[in-house]
Amino acid sequence: MVRTQACLLALCLLMLTSLSFSEVGRDLPLPSWNNTKVKSAIMAFVDKVTQVDGSDFVPPEQRIAVFDNDGTLWAEKPAYFQLLFAMDEVKRLAPEHPEWKTEQPFASILNGDMISLLAEGRAGLEKVIGATHADMTADEFHRTVARWLTSARNPLTGQHYRNMTYQPMLELLNYLRSNGFKIYIVSGGGVDFIRVFSENLYGIPPEQVIGSRLKARYESNNGHPRVVMTDKVEFVNDKQGKPIGISQSIGRRPIFAVGNSDGDLQMLQWVTTGKGPRFGMLIHHTDGKREWAYDRNSRVGRLDKALQAAKPYGWTVVDMAKDWGVIFPPVRPVPPKRKTAHKSELKGR
Amino acid sequence: MVRTQACLLALCLLMLTSLSFSEVGRDLPLPSWNNTKVKSAIMAFVDKVTQVDGSDFVPPEQRIAVFDNDGTLWAEKPAYFQLLFAMDEVKRLAPEHPEWKTEQPFASILNGDMISLLAEGRAGLEKVIGATHADMTADEFHRTVARWLTSARNPLTGQHYRNMTYQPMLELLNYLRSNGFKIYIVSGGGVDFIRVFSENLYGIPPEQVIGSRLKARYESNNGHPRVVMTDKVEFVNDKQGKPIGISQSIGRRPIFAVGNSDGDLQMLQWVTTGKGPRFGMLIHHTDGKREWAYDRNSRVGRLDKALQAAKPYGWTVVDMAKDWGVIFPPVRPVPPKRKTAHKSELKGR
Repeated sequence: MVRTQACLLALCLLMLTSLSFSEVGRDLPLPSWNNTKVKSAIMAFVDKVTQVDGSDFVPPEQRIAVFDNDGTLWAEKPAYFQLLFAMDEVKRLAPEHPEWKTEQPFASILNGDMISLLAEGRAGLEKVIGATHADMTADEFHRTVARWLTSARNPLTGQHYRNMTYQPMLELLNYLRSNGFKIYIVSGGGVDFIRVFSENLYGIPPEQVIGSRLKARYESNNGHPRVVMTDKVEFVNDKQGKPIGISQSIGRRPIFAVGNSDGDLQMLQWVTTGKGPRFGMLIHHTDGKREWAYDRNSRVGRLDKALQAAKPYGWTVVDMAKDWGVIFPPVRPVPPKRKTAHKSELKGR
Repeated sequence: MVRTQACLLALCLLMLTSLSFSEVGRDLPLPSWNNTKVKSAIMAFVDKVTQVDGSDFVPPEQRIAVFDNDGTLWAEKPAYFQLLFAMDEVKRLAPEHPEWKTEQPFASILNGDMISLLAEGRAGLEKVIGATHADMTADEFHRTVARWLTSARNPLTGQHYRNMTYQPMLELLNYLRSNGFKIYIVSGGGVDFIRVFSENLYGIPPEQVIGSRLKARYESNNGHPRVVMTDKVEFVNDKQGKPIGISQSIGRRPIFAVGNSDGDLQMLQWVTTGKGPRFGMLIHHTDGKREWAYDRNSRVGRLDKALQAAKPYGWTVVDMAKDWGVIFPPVRPVPPKRKTAHKSELKGR
């Protein structure tokens, strides 16, 4: 009798195990993705390259996936979050700089005038970077950004920035990782900025972040050396800079690339024209209700040429409204300032 | 009776397991290292940082170790092996370039005159790099280097270059890896050159190689994009370039650094002055019988300032003659041209 019960228990456990295996294999991996062609395409690709005896098998060390960050892993409205950080920093540091009240581009920032700020162009941006990113070590900068991340809120949603990652993309990162992929962020944003939160938000360690960077300076500092960031932009990891940045950092061509704007065009072209199985994907922001709808005419995250290239190059295009069941992580509270969002967002285009 | 036998068997298994554990922990890890203070210092450090409840515990993601390559992981006589590669390439390509017979620095190379070649300095070196490293993708360069590695032999030892790695260092890499360390090569040599063999010789994947690099160019190439190396040196990963290169690639300060020359001075200083437990080590080439004995007066791999800094900074110095039981991998056959080695080597100083 006892033996029968034990056998039954074992059988139940076995059934439970096989059930959960089939669930893991079929339904669990990408729960926030609707059951559309896009989800099937992702899973079919991953199945194909991980099938040990298949003709498309790719050994784990070559399963490298690259992801853009702004607009791909987290949102980018009303402007790239790093720019919003720099603006918040200018406000925080303003009491020590009374001259900024009349000096551009600082005056525009202090007056909340983003249009005038953007009109200052690259020269203006470099001044802001110099005042907020330079003359410190990566560790010192890390502390500043980490403090900002726990306190600052996005002006459109009222959310902490860490709540504005995309839930389906977090699931995609996990799904790829569990299938032996090594994942890199390849962003036009500053590498030292993204490294502050990449591990915590995405599970991507700092050494797997490739981005734009400032020229660094080595100081011997009386036997306590420091590597200090200057205010000179040394490398812009955008457009054709992305394949170059990947080549220099990784030394292999990835097989999986995801982006959302024309800044990702060359990365997608380069990744998907390599030999063997390749996967290219564009996130198309089509959801004006749950997020924002924008593409060719957006100043931030413009998607025009890359969208035209999707068909000839065979890239999968995510229609956020249609393909994503959820946009932001489910625990995210209701955004308090959501109503004013669209007006401000339109101004920022 | 059966139960007693089973218990005895279990006991034997248990003893066997604990025995093999203690062997792994005490004697097996670094078999080619003599039982000197150096070996004890390495093992004491690793024990300390991996002790979960100890005050010096370092979580695995921060256990980053950096190793120089030339003179640290493999030999560097009569000259850095990458220079010997470039010279071999000039010879291989010479039939297509009759003008090289009279053009410097190519004429010196074709005449086997290394002194005149070195006298050409950086400008000469850049010409050689342009002729042998530029205008190709990393993949194309990879094929050239891989072919050279299977055929070329070191002029002093008659060995294939892959047989001139240091056995004790291969064991150290394995020992650190098995204790959760992530290992990077940080070399003054070219990153694309080292990436060809780093995985095969050292188990270090290409993305964990940091080195000097040429400026890269992106070519759209009618929809089949390429990232091509130009002949312009963009970054020299030597001396103060090493801490900068590490900062840019890894974004964290390593806790373990090994080098063998003044080119490693700043890397060792920067790594070992960080907060928390740190380990710095210098390989001192003291073995004129089994390898070569050189330091302050050597043109290749000069060790002078870094050796002076070892004591004040608390670095461990490996005396190759004393601390290493074996130099090269044990399967290595007897070098056929060993006799002529020392004369040529002296010329190269």
